[in-house]
Amino acid sequence: MPAVQGDLRSDAALTGLLIADLIGVAVFAASGASAAVGKRLDLFGVAFVGFVAALGGGILRDLVVGAVPPLAFADWRYAVTAVLASLAVFRWHPQLNRLRRTVLVLDAAGLGLFTVTGTLKALDAGVPPVGACLVGMLTSIGGGLARDLLTGEIPAVLQRDIYAVVALGGAVAVSVLSWLNVADLITLCAAALTMTAVRLVALYRRWSAPIAVP
Amino acid sequence: MPAVQGDLRSDAALTGLLIADLIGVAVFAASGASAAVGKRLDLFGVAFVGFVAALGGGILRDLVVGAVPPLAFADWRYAVTAVLASLAVFRWHPQLNRLRRTVLVLDAAGLGLFTVTGTLKALDAGVPPVGACLVGMLTSIGGGLARDLLTGEIPAVLQRDIYAVVALGGAVAVSVLSWLNVADLITLCAAALTMTAVRLVALYRRWSAPIAVP
Amino acid sequence: MPAVQGDLRSDAALTGLLIADLIGVAVFAASGASAAVGKRLDLFGVAFVGFVAALGGGILRDLVVGAVPPLAFADWRYAVTAVLASLAVFRWHPQLNRLRRTVLVLDAAGLGLFTVTGTLKALDAGVPPVGACLVGMLTSIGGGLARDLLTGEIPAVLQRDIYAVVALGGAVAVSVLSWLNVADLITLCAAALTMTAVRLVALYRRWSAPIAVP
Repeated sequence: MPAVQGDLRSDAALTGLLIADLIGVAVFAASGASAAVGKRLDLFGVAFVGFVAALGGGILRDLVVGAVPPLAFADWRYAVTAVLASLAVFRWHPQLNRLRRTVLVLDAAGLGLFTVTGTLKALDAGVPPVGACLVGMLTSIGGGLARDLLTGEIPAVLQRDIYAVVALGGAVAVSVLSWLNVADLITLCAAALTMTAVRLVALYRRWSAPIAVP
Repeated sequence: MPAVQGDLRSDAALTGLLIADLIGVAVFAASGASAAVGKRLDLFGVAFVGFVAALGGGILRDLVVGAVPPLAFADWRYAVTAVLASLAVFRWHPQLNRLRRTVLVLDAAGLGLFTVTGTLKALDAGVPPVGACLVGMLTSIGGGLARDLLTGEIPAVLQRDIYAVVALGGAVAVSVLSWLNVADLITLCAAALTMTAVRLVALYRRWSAPIAVP
Repeated sequence: MPAVQGDLRSDAALTGLLIADLIGVAVFAASGASAAVGKRLDLFGVAFVGFVAALGGGILRDLVVGAVPPLAFADWRYAVTAVLASLAVFRWHPQLNRLRRTVLVLDAAGLGLFTVTGTLKALDAGVPPVGACLVGMLTSIGGGLARDLLTGEIPAVLQRDIYAVVALGGAVAVSVLSWLNVADLITLCAAALTMTAVRLVALYRRWSAPIAVP
């Protein structure tokens, strides 16, 4: 039985999913490109870090579930979207500071979306639930991890903020929905939107995870 | 012909192997979690670096030999063991300094065990001997490498200590045993214990590999 | 239809390709080993960074196109060549400064060769053209990226120099040749040599990619 039910595999739903996915790719690429501009990388470096930030999580997901070649290489629209978004940041990054809040909201939306699609793809490929939750989380945090490693930083997601925990909670929710056979368009959108909302509240309230006492 | 012979595939042997494997996972996770606590990563960062230190080598091994999804995602006991060990370090790390010698002994045992199982899995998957030795070595050093990269350090295994060379020697021994058709429970345990012993002697005597003259 | 045509699959051509490939491996290993010696890594670290610099790009390529185990593990000649070249650098690195120009020329030749073989392998495995170009480029820059990450540097290929862009341009040329059904021994050699020449001119003229205005 597939991991999702009902009309989620209709043409309209798939087109909607592709558009949402590409928006997530563009936003994650912009985060990578911004970090690369800040480190004074050259034009190629900015495009490359943007590509990795946007598609690194999905490439890892596809390698782990055995879907080769990964979607980032199999469908040109992903790479082209990531590179165009990175080049836009390279060209217009001074003006982007004004868009900072928009970018944070879109990034939170990408977090929800990538976690849902990553978890479903893993379940569909036969990965058991605990593993599928980890794959779903890695799909949404993997790109940011790689971005930080490429720019010489200890990954931000390991240091502060409530980000990966939101992804993990959302992946668990998606696995439960799928196990209950109610993973349809409405419940999955609700899961993605809840993740986005929790992430935004965590940002606004400056929630952070505990650090070990010395 | 399989890479191992005799009673190594009996239920009792497999249960023993699983328990030994999970102890190795717990110890490697503790090493990752300790490094993460030292870098003041948050609770999630500690759990994540512990997970990667424990299971990164095995994930790399499984991707290279085409065993997807990797065991770390296919069997929930591995991820749960790694995370629980990491959380224990997060909670009780000040007391762990007293256990430092125990941890070093268990780490040496993990080195021996992971090298043996990694090399056998590669041989079983049809990787030729030289490649299988490299895969066996990567299984035991890959997690520590990833731990150091995630915490912003040049990997310790590349800088000092006799660690990877012990793994490489052990992997060669396992390949020879398998080629001679004498890779059974007793000879493989002997190989793992020898690696553990050599590693402990190297630690005690402070053996180190040469550095190039400037 | 295969990605290459004509006599490129003859025994003589394949032997020539293997020898060229191993020269590329040796040169890339030397670049990794030099970086490792400079960071005062030990003998094992020098061999390991050399191995990764030489074969990391090809391992990534093979994982992405589903060719497991990767060639670096399936054919012992690759690993042995990389390790021997690294050990030679460890032993004779002071004298290598005099060979610096030779190494740069051989590195440029490796860039051309690895890009051509990487792109062809991806096309042959059914990766669509845009993805195959990315895989071809990653084949030639992946090892250097991993070398820099292992030695604690932000990858040079992202910061300066015309290197990856040459690879990308060459990969596009190879894809077009293959699409036109004229990817034979002569045109592919011409593509590799053109890449090498452009890279050397870029080095000589100190061309560099633009950096974003602050």
